[in-house]
Amino acid sequence: MPQLAPEGQLTTQQIGDIRTEAGAVIPDVTIAYHRWGEYEETSDGSTNVVLIEHALTGDSNAADWWCDLVGPGKAIDTDLYCVICTNVIGGCNGSTGPSSQHPDGGFWGSRFPATDIRDQVKAEKQFLDTIGITRVKAVLGGSMGGARTLEWAAMFPEVVDAAAVLAVSARASAWQIGIQSAQIMAIENDHHWHEGNYYESGCNPSKGLGAARRIAHLTYRGELEIDERFGTQAQKGEDPLGPYRSPDQRFAVESYLDHQADKLVKRFDAGSYVTLTDALNRHDIGRGRGGLNKALESITIPVMVAGVDTDILYPYHQQEHLSRNLGNLLAMAKIVSPVGHDAFLTESRQMDRILRNFFSLISPEQENPSTYIEFFI
Amino acid sequence: MPQLAPEGQLTTQQIGDIRTEAGAVIPDVTIAYHRWGEYEETSDGSTNVVLIEHALTGDSNAADWWCDLVGPGKAIDTDLYCVICTNVIGGCNGSTGPSSQHPDGGFWGSRFPATDIRDQVKAEKQFLDTIGITRVKAVLGGSMGGARTLEWAAMFPEVVDAAAVLAVSARASAWQIGIQSAQIMAIENDHHWHEGNYYESGCNPSKGLGAARRIAHLTYRGELEIDERFGTQAQKGEDPLGPYRSPDQRFAVESYLDHQADKLVKRFDAGSYVTLTDALNRHDIGRGRGGLNKALESITIPVMVAGVDTDILYPYHQQEHLSRNLGNLLAMAKIVSPVGHDAFLTESRQMDRILRNFFSLISPEQENPSTYIEFFI
Repeated sequence: MPQLAPEGQLTTQQIGDIRTEAGAVIPDVTIAYHRWGEYEETSDGSTNVVLIEHALTGDSNAADWWCDLVGPGKAIDTDLYCVICTNVIGGCNGSTGPSSQHPDGGFWGSRFPATDIRDQVKAEKQFLDTIGITRVKAVLGGSMGGARTLEWAAMFPEVVDAAAVLAVSARASAWQIGIQSAQIMAIENDHHWHEGNYYESGCNPSKGLGAARRIAHLTYRGELEIDERFGTQAQKGEDPLGPYRSPDQRFAVESYLDHQADKLVKRFDAGSYVTLTDALNRHDIGRGRGGLNKALESITIPVMVAGVDTDILYPYHQQEHLSRNLGNLLAMAKIVSPVGHDAFLTESRQMDRILRNFFSLISPEQENPSTYIEFFI
Repeated sequence: MPQLAPEGQLTTQQIGDIRTEAGAVIPDVTIAYHRWGEYEETSDGSTNVVLIEHALTGDSNAADWWCDLVGPGKAIDTDLYCVICTNVIGGCNGSTGPSSQHPDGGFWGSRFPATDIRDQVKAEKQFLDTIGITRVKAVLGGSMGGARTLEWAAMFPEVVDAAAVLAVSARASAWQIGIQSAQIMAIENDHHWHEGNYYESGCNPSKGLGAARRIAHLTYRGELEIDERFGTQAQKGEDPLGPYRSPDQRFAVESYLDHQADKLVKRFDAGSYVTLTDALNRHDIGRGRGGLNKALESITIPVMVAGVDTDILYPYHQQEHLSRNLGNLLAMAKIVSPVGHDAFLTESRQMDRILRNFFSLISPEQENPSTYIEFFI
């Protein structure tokens, strides 16, 4: 039996060294994680483990950020499944990252190597090995979590029985690399960044991280939804139409973006933001595998794909590309929403149906009364 | 007869004071402009003047930036029309703006008031009055130039006989305000900005302006076109997949955006960029006119509308909104292109047909052998 964290409590696990795809070594890595539901294993070695992969600034507390979907009786049913969510390597929520202590003293900072999506999955596999889990019923996630899910399917088909890949692409597009690099540059241009070694300076590159978040947030949200909410309204008590422009006389949408920026600055590390954004820039399922389509075709485990019709960061044609080329497509679903990319987090009703459908397809023996068939290709 | 600039030569004209919509006064304004083709006037007072409105970082040399469309025998035919293009007030190409000399000494800098699209049109009208032009056959432009064109139609229907509004909306959307404010903030966060008064400091906020341009450029270009060109390619001689992230090891798309940023920094003033971006944030055809649709309905001159199917900055539904509500819709055209917003500048073949169609509709007496009928609603 694996040694598991107490239910719903952030727990850390040492997993040894990680050698990155690009050849650097991160010694003595810690992975922090959450677990819900009891572990079960059948005589053929299969388990009831469901692995959730969080997005860029997400964390292992999936029952919090995906609260409508993870829990007893919910689509990701903790009465049926042993649900595990780890904090990504390079992040700042308990797993080793740039803001962690370096074994030689001080903080990792700029000494922290580049880690790509495959390194994230490699660390997670090493984590599962360490705690004694050798088979996973399903892995699923959206955005960066979707990229990790896809790499799981490509790298460890003998471990993972099925996957649900949400709101992501087979590789970073040039547009994504462009807009993500603009965010990295906003942080690097902040004079508090100190080339990534600001942890002992007493100052954070908060302005840079906030600027990055403002840009990012506009790629996470559809213009229809943002406009429905804010239009050209002034922020209450401010006049953005005055005779002289002033940064403190804002439109409502500016105040909203300031708020999103402030929230992120309080909870997230700029070094991790750069590291994980760089990992997304490096996302390419085809690298070293004969190109995108050959890599997708060679994925033999059943994979469900879902995307959002209004996503400007990972446009729906990218999920159509996945669905056309995956070796064993389980199902395809479209989330219809004005929200854009974040709809996989916010459109709970649609996500509920999509995920219940996923589990009914991979566990036909389980009763699942709320299942609706979404559209298939 | 109006006193006109020599053909194709940048010429300046004093136009007196401008009082902005928000109540500030800019004394002794200069407008710089280009003119091509001979002026003609008929006995009923109508003229052959065509007014081209340039976009945010454009300028009055339309025969240069729209070279496939402006010239003898071209869609905007300088053999038939007297074509005039003025540099916008607030800009940096000869018309009064933040980088101009203030009457009281020094540069305008932060003393330059906020100017909105209506102020831009008001200044242009005052310019035409000054040089002695009282009627305009057509006004046309895209993006910020489209916003100016639309305001011309709303403000001075007795002056303008017809208009072609390209790749713009009836007002700024919240998403546009958000992404445009992120650009302003990138400039304001540059410590060389000095709250807009950097002109005598010997340093320019080049990093901030470059960062703004990188973001802007990604809203001007479709992700399909950017990806076609760059995909995940590394910049020649650089390795963005190395073991440690480094700003000088770039993907090809990063190098391309750096190049776009460098080009703009060399030719454009950061103060003007902030002023004109703020003007776009304030764009709202409905303000003080009973709302958007009432304002559009009250536009009685014939207006053609065109948009780009892949535009993420001014999505095509915004041009559909214009076409549904304008009081006198002349025609509607869709530019089909992977390029996105900038397609009104780059898709010369389609723009040629759209503009020839426009002129044949407003000048049925002129022979125009290359006219094709685009789709109408």
